[in-house]
Amino acid sequence: MIGFSSNVGVMASLTISEEQQEPFVLSSSWPQSQESNKKWKGFGGFVLVHAGAGYHSESKAKEYKHVCKRACQRAVDQLKSGALAVEAVAAALVELEDSPFTNAGMGSNLNLSGEIECDASIMDGKSLHYGAVGAISGIKNPIFVANRLLTEAQKGKLSAGRIPPCFLVGQGAQDWAVSHGIPPCPSEKMTTMFSLSAYKRNKRKMELAEKMDMGHNQAKRRRQSSGNENGSQCLDTVGAVVVDLEGNVAAAVSSGGLAMKHPGRVGQAAHYGCGCWAENANDMISYSTAVSTSGCGEHLIRTMLARECSSAMQSEDAHQALLEAMQNKFISSPFLASEDRVLGGVIVLRCCRCVEAEPSPNIQGLLVEFLWSHTTESMCVGYMSAQDSKAKTHISRLPPGTVPGQSLAIEGGVCRLMNSSD
Amino acid sequence: MIGFSSNVGVMASLTISEEQQEPFVLSSSWPQSQESNKKWKGFGGFVLVHAGAGYHSESKAKEYKHVCKRACQRAVDQLKSGALAVEAVAAALVELEDSPFTNAGMGSNLNLSGEIECDASIMDGKSLHYGAVGAISGIKNPIFVANRLLTEAQKGKLSAGRIPPCFLVGQGAQDWAVSHGIPPCPSEKMTTMFSLSAYKRNKRKMELAEKMDMGHNQAKRRRQSSGNENGSQCLDTVGAVVVDLEGNVAAAVSSGGLAMKHPGRVGQAAHYGCGCWAENANDMISYSTAVSTSGCGEHLIRTMLARECSSAMQSEDAHQALLEAMQNKFISSPFLASEDRVLGGVIVLRCCRCVEAEPSPNIQGLLVEFLWSHTTESMCVGYMSAQDSKAKTHISRLPPGTVPGQSLAIEGGVCRLMNSSD
Repeated sequence: MIGFSSNVGVMASLTISEEQQEPFVLSSSWPQSQESNKKWKGFGGFVLVHAGAGYHSESKAKEYKHVCKRACQRAVDQLKSGALAVEAVAAALVELEDSPFTNAGMGSNLNLSGEIECDASIMDGKSLHYGAVGAISGIKNPIFVANRLLTEAQKGKLSAGRIPPCFLVGQGAQDWAVSHGIPPCPSEKMTTMFSLSAYKRNKRKMELAEKMDMGHNQAKRRRQSSGNENGSQCLDTVGAVVVDLEGNVAAAVSSGGLAMKHPGRVGQAAHYGCGCWAENANDMISYSTAVSTSGCGEHLIRTMLARECSSAMQSEDAHQALLEAMQNKFISSPFLASEDRVLGGVIVLRCCRCVEAEPSPNIQGLLVEFLWSHTTESMCVGYMSAQDSKAKTHISRLPPGTVPGQSLAIEGGVCRLMNSSD
Repeated sequence: MIGFSSNVGVMASLTISEEQQEPFVLSSSWPQSQESNKKWKGFGGFVLVHAGAGYHSESKAKEYKHVCKRACQRAVDQLKSGALAVEAVAAALVELEDSPFTNAGMGSNLNLSGEIECDASIMDGKSLHYGAVGAISGIKNPIFVANRLLTEAQKGKLSAGRIPPCFLVGQGAQDWAVSHGIPPCPSEKMTTMFSLSAYKRNKRKMELAEKMDMGHNQAKRRRQSSGNENGSQCLDTVGAVVVDLEGNVAAAVSSGGLAMKHPGRVGQAAHYGCGCWAENANDMISYSTAVSTSGCGEHLIRTMLARECSSAMQSEDAHQALLEAMQNKFISSPFLASEDRVLGGVIVLRCCRCVEAEPSPNIQGLLVEFLWSHTTESMCVGYMSAQDSKAKTHISRLPPGTVPGQSLAIEGGVCRLMNSSD
């Protein structure tokens, strides 16, 4: 595995390994010849996960890395057992949601009423189907519901020709989940000591801010409080992107949303094109791409960041393309011209077929380029191929002195997945 | 006003007026010189509305046209009193929602539980802000809530630096609306005799379909019922696009959603980039564009049709650009490859500054090109400039014999808004 990085507001941290020298030939389109009929031996693939763009304290770094490691392992276990990318990505998300340290599923941020309302979505690059839930309560793994919506929609129309939904919210989403065999989970079981104490702390902070503003007019109050940024530790949405050995990609994202959000608020994690995107290569596009985002939902929605990054990834230089997309379509986006800080992060994967020149032209594989970039203080990622014995994890940080929301970090690597065909 | 039309599956119906011969010079960018500092005399603008892409029976044609006429008049009244495009588009939507004949606000389709849940969104091309509500009950005019979310977000952050929401759903959305002074409305007041009888009819149809399918397996049942299309009369979402005399554009959309939808289902009308889009011209884009969509929400979401049409409108030939967008990004979209019929419609407006060569170079104005296109059986539209005494309305239909969801109709016109500057 080789790595590359940029120093746009970040110190390079990945090293370049020996593997870089190995020869490979890139093929920018999927094989249309008889090659495509050849069976691949065994199963495999690659997964990249994130435990959020936000702030990951040194004291909890171990926990964040650990959950990323477990999520990668879950996806790889699925891939090795022959699962498609979309199934593997859902498995990774379950692990990320189940951690009490992440802001998704168990341990999600509490809203203004002290309740948990989650957003999640999943996209299958093969069928281009998509499923999403927004502001759903009382379900331990929102990604299960999003994934089930996706699979149900793939089955075609409902009775009397009704079109199946791809996006459900609130109580209706919970009822649909339960009627499809996904068990309800009491909200109190999903609330952790940590999320509850953060809620109490935030509530006091809000009350204090509102008290201090008494007597000021609305406009002045708003301007004053705009300097008081939302605790970026509250932005740690989770997500994953996967490619299987057939070259299918999938992406997913899950979030408890902003701390102290208004009940019913839906963030980017449930928004088509904003939270995740996955698109297999086809006649029109050379690379398969998968993207998952994290950060301030409103910023990620209004810039449609997942889809923008996916489109950008059709350029030749993946690193440069992501750098430009993050700079031009996010930090400097005309859609966020009024924002002083633009907070978010992405994980990106793109792949194409490659043919080994050595040792034998029968050995084909996938060249997988994977990247992450963020404007938040930090972002925790993990990645693993089915050929690796264990996942690598990393907490990427903006260098000290740079301003979150105005500068970015970008890093990534390349991985080749090889298999002989016959 | 001049008109143009295409015969891609449709009979041309607009006539070309004498005005076509009048000379004008197109300017593809906004004036950067001292011209831009000149004050425009008076107020004005242009509005295009739709009462849905679906099926509009001849017997009710008069009612549909009448509501479009009233909606145009409401927007023009606003424009004449100096309102910005975003205020005028909201006014048009209120009129469209209040009609018991449209599937929005009053008289919305009932869901599977016999309840009304509405989606609506609005976008301001000047600020690029956006507001949306999904699956909201008990509010007579959902567009009020969407518009209020937009204006609140423009004011900046909430207390303690919290980011204001741009998208609220369900009970939380209703609570937010009421706390912001929008009065609740009992659902029974929004239900009409027509929507109730349609619900009862649909319920019987569903029960019959499910009874007939007894003993068949799930896959077979689904395939069989897929031939039984959703009554396309149920797709008539409403929307509007407006340009004011300063050249600001805005777009809005509102819908009761598919008949017999699952509670909590959110359609394109609440989905960023899918239900409506508005973007003023800037350094990067030559034309201001505004789009509003109607039809099957899932199809419009998965193709992100509003934003796709807006992007396409930067090409030189507006008519050709929309034709290609509807054909390639909707009917033949890889995202809807599994669908046998792709049901939807759009209204589109684009404009740029123009300078009159005659009678005096001091007379400047806006060249407004407006179009509608649909794959549904019919689409009802109305349009009016502030210089017109009354709105024109039109029910566009696919020609007999063509298949809804597989062919399209496209029509439109051009209007010049003139004003002397000094």
